Amino acid sequence: EEVAKLLELKAQIGDEAPKKFTLKTPKGTRDYNPQQMAIREGVLKTIVAAFKRHGAETIDTPVFELKDTLTGKYGEDSKLIYDLKDQGGEILSLRYDLTVPFARYLAMSKVSTIKRYHIAKVYRRDNPAMTRGRYREFYQCDFDIAGQYDSMIPDAECIKIVAEILSQLKLGDFVIKVNHRKLLDGIFAACGVPEDKFRTICSAVDKLDKTFWEDVKAEMVDEKGLDSESADAIGNYVRLNGGLDLIEQLEADQVLCAQKAAVEGLKDMKQLLNYCQLFGVLDNVSFDLSLARGLDYYTGVIYEAVLKDAPEENGTKSKSGKKEDEVGVGSIAGGGRYDNLVGMFDSKGRKVPCVGVSLGVERIFSIMEAKAKKSKEKTRTTETEVYVATAQKGLSDERMKICAELWDNDIKSEQPYKLNPKLLQQLQHCEEMAIPLAVVIGQSEIESGIVKIRNIPSRTEREVPRADMVAELRKDLESLQSTASQ
Amino acid sequence: EEVAKLLELKAQIGDEAPKKFTLKTPKGTRDYNPQQMAIREGVLKTIVAAFKRHGAETIDTPVFELKDTLTGKYGEDSKLIYDLKDQGGEILSLRYDLTVPFARYLAMSKVSTIKRYHIAKVYRRDNPAMTRGRYREFYQCDFDIAGQYDSMIPDAECIKIVAEILSQLKLGDFVIKVNHRKLLDGIFAACGVPEDKFRTICSAVDKLDKTFWEDVKAEMVDEKGLDSESADAIGNYVRLNGGLDLIEQLEADQVLCAQKAAVEGLKDMKQLLNYCQLFGVLDNVSFDLSLARGLDYYTGVIYEAVLKDAPEENGTKSKSGKKEDEVGVGSIAGGGRYDNLVGMFDSKGRKVPCVGVSLGVERIFSIMEAKAKKSKEKTRTTETEVYVATAQKGLSDERMKICAELWDNDIKSEQPYKLNPKLLQQLQHCEEMAIPLAVVIGQSEIESGIVKIRNIPSRTEREVPRADMVAELRKDLESLQSTASQ
Repeated sequence: EEVAKLLELKAQIGDEAPKKFTLKTPKGTRDYNPQQMAIREGVLKTIVAAFKRHGAETIDTPVFELKDTLTGKYGEDSKLIYDLKDQGGEILSLRYDLTVPFARYLAMSKVSTIKRYHIAKVYRRDNPAMTRGRYREFYQCDFDIAGQYDSMIPDAECIKIVAEILSQLKLGDFVIKVNHRKLLDGIFAACGVPEDKFRTICSAVDKLDKTFWEDVKAEMVDEKGLDSESADAIGNYVRLNGGLDLIEQLEADQVLCAQKAAVEGLKDMKQLLNYCQLFGVLDNVSFDLSLARGLDYYTGVIYEAVLKDAPEENGTKSKSGKKEDEVGVGSIAGGGRYDNLVGMFDSKGRKVPCVGVSLGVERIFSIMEAKAKKSKEKTRTTETEVYVATAQKGLSDERMKICAELWDNDIKSEQPYKLNPKLLQQLQHCEEMAIPLAVVIGQSEIESGIVKIRNIPSRTEREVPRADMVAELRKDLESLQSTASQ
Repeated sequence: EEVAKLLELKAQIGDEAPKKFTLKTPKGTRDYNPQQMAIREGVLKTIVAAFKRHGAETIDTPVFELKDTLTGKYGEDSKLIYDLKDQGGEILSLRYDLTVPFARYLAMSKVSTIKRYHIAKVYRRDNPAMTRGRYREFYQCDFDIAGQYDSMIPDAECIKIVAEILSQLKLGDFVIKVNHRKLLDGIFAACGVPEDKFRTICSAVDKLDKTFWEDVKAEMVDEKGLDSESADAIGNYVRLNGGLDLIEQLEADQVLCAQKAAVEGLKDMKQLLNYCQLFGVLDNVSFDLSLARGLDYYTGVIYEAVLKDAPEENGTKSKSGKKEDEVGVGSIAGGGRYDNLVGMFDSKGRKVPCVGVSLGVERIFSIMEAKAKKSKEKTRTTETEVYVATAQKGLSDERMKICAELWDNDIKSEQPYKLNPKLLQQLQHCEEMAIPLAVVIGQSEIESGIVKIRNIPSRTEREVPRADMVAELRKDLESLQSTASQ
């Protein structure tokens, strides 16, 4: 408390005496300029359209939660949570993902079935790698289906939706890895891992996308006290990946199939892959036993979508032997089934089964930005349709009246913020900003009751009666639009 | 520091031992459910359309800033800033508004002209009054014009844009109060206020919309040490409001016009009101000398838009004599000119003149929600166009294939998440959710290579060849759309 008082005192002093400061955004964060926003909006539009195509609603939750709400949900990653200062009130933390707030929302609002998407920023005090699109503040786009439903139908839809989005964004080839927590548990049991070590061993397996097997094994044996034979047995399993063929192979594994969890997991996986086939996305799916996902709360199917070639990032192996930047960094979406999370918030432990997927769109933004830079095509950051220009001095009143008329008729318009700008400069501005049309008025036009409409790209002009201006502009805009969409 | 350690220890213990906790969102915050989101999206769409109609770009900034960035910008309100815990790194605070981050952005990116909007949440540890739409986390919709331009042209456009938005949202009658900081300074000088008391006296005047003049006077005299005559003289000015007539009246005031600041302010106001007339919004504008605005950074024109009748909130005077809930709570937008703020961030003090306005949309959301509740018309929260239903058991494979085909053809579709649902229940679901069309398949349809298309509201069905399904659905959807838009 004393510390808080001192800090407050310091802050007050700061209010009085101006001091030098660093002009920057906080570590791991960035501003989006208008070009970046235009790209971001394009990506989010595609994603929202996909969510809506699948009948999803949307919700929103506060950027911070009671710290208790987040406690015990993220396993080893809890240390990355941002806490707010205790300013005399509740103890708060910034949200770490959108899944836990979603589960809190379901429990609190007593919602037992919903298909919702949520697009919002989340916060992690992680080591930022901003050139690769890894930030401390970043967007997540989550799609989740909550409800007691028949097995694997919602789970398969999550895969379908990710496949639709990644195809439409044209990010190159991708694969959606799938696995099942119950199957992993069955494997661990079959390999002789004691049950109380399932989660911690699972979290070691999760590092396989960034680390070599030898290091993962060392973590299991040296840090986590697993015997070496068990670790090797696990190693043989987690190297496997495939499709329906792998299901058959595992179904024939008698040691594995002595484990109830494994049998259940395999049954689910078989059904999931069948549904993926019906949905036409089986080619994008890889059943991958090395996929484990870090978070504690998954209970069934788990997913991870990976771009096959992210060319900027091809694999420099780091000194520590980590595969950092080689595999796994193409990861662009992840998720899974979490049937017990809502129950953790419900006073009666009432469960709401959930499955969902989260798109890590900052990486997508980074890729799109790099593409835009390469193509050198200018991204328009405004939608202005008409520029209202004056040919001589002293006509600003008339110009403003015209502007007001265009705005009132829902025509996107701008005018110079100078009383007496030069005509040439106004027209150059239109060309630079790719504004397609200009209304030009001079003294003679005002006297004759007309305006000139100028087509900026073709530099042609025509005169129309002042009274017909709006109708004529609408005609021009429509024909421009139909040309553009051809 | 010890406190921090203890808290961390406590948090770690929390990780181990599950404990009781309160299921709630933090004080002053709320979730948005799908109905509320649908309303929010409708409001934001209208606002964004207006911003784009005026040629604005958009930017985004992080939710937190270095604490130093916010220090010394908000005067008496600084105590309401949320700070983050010092977790070993930079000292951060949640943004308090979007204006200071915008100024920081301009200085950091060396942008000297931009017209931008920014829609994002801001954070204030204020006393929440959630039934009236006052929260600790709330959206602001800001529109600002930065650049060295001819006087009052951008300033008038801000008024025009607020008038457009409030008219389109149909919130009832509104008035946009305008005043000028230089004119206020001139009044203070003319009334004998010493210059070093201008800001603190201004901040007392700002309370006039919530407090009676007697209390404001008491604050000036008792708390802030102003002599009683000066306060009374101010009282005579700040009671005035009007239009171009008030300008004339003040221009004839020789005591006032002996003050250079007052003359400059009056000249600006005259020009502003003239431009408002050209823009067709003068009827919505009231030149109001009691308007002061709380924030320190304004240097010129200031605005505040107020709803004339907010019926839910009609005036219970509180015991303390405050007019809380009587006047001023209808305030729905505010802003002004701040020519020195960017310079505060620039190492060379380079200035970028700015003017802008901020819409407090939570109040608008609250009003719209109340309206929606009253009208009892159901707000659709999904956009699903087609429901794929099965008439008998065992047809889920075919159903999923149809779904995939519809999704791949960008038709918004859903199916039951059960293998063998009852047909009646599926059709009831369509009616409840206002889904306009259903594709119904049974064994006989599959065998004959057809599907049934059912119009849900009219309960009529027709059979179409399976191969024509997508084309036929598109036709139906188009005709539904053209009916709806008539």
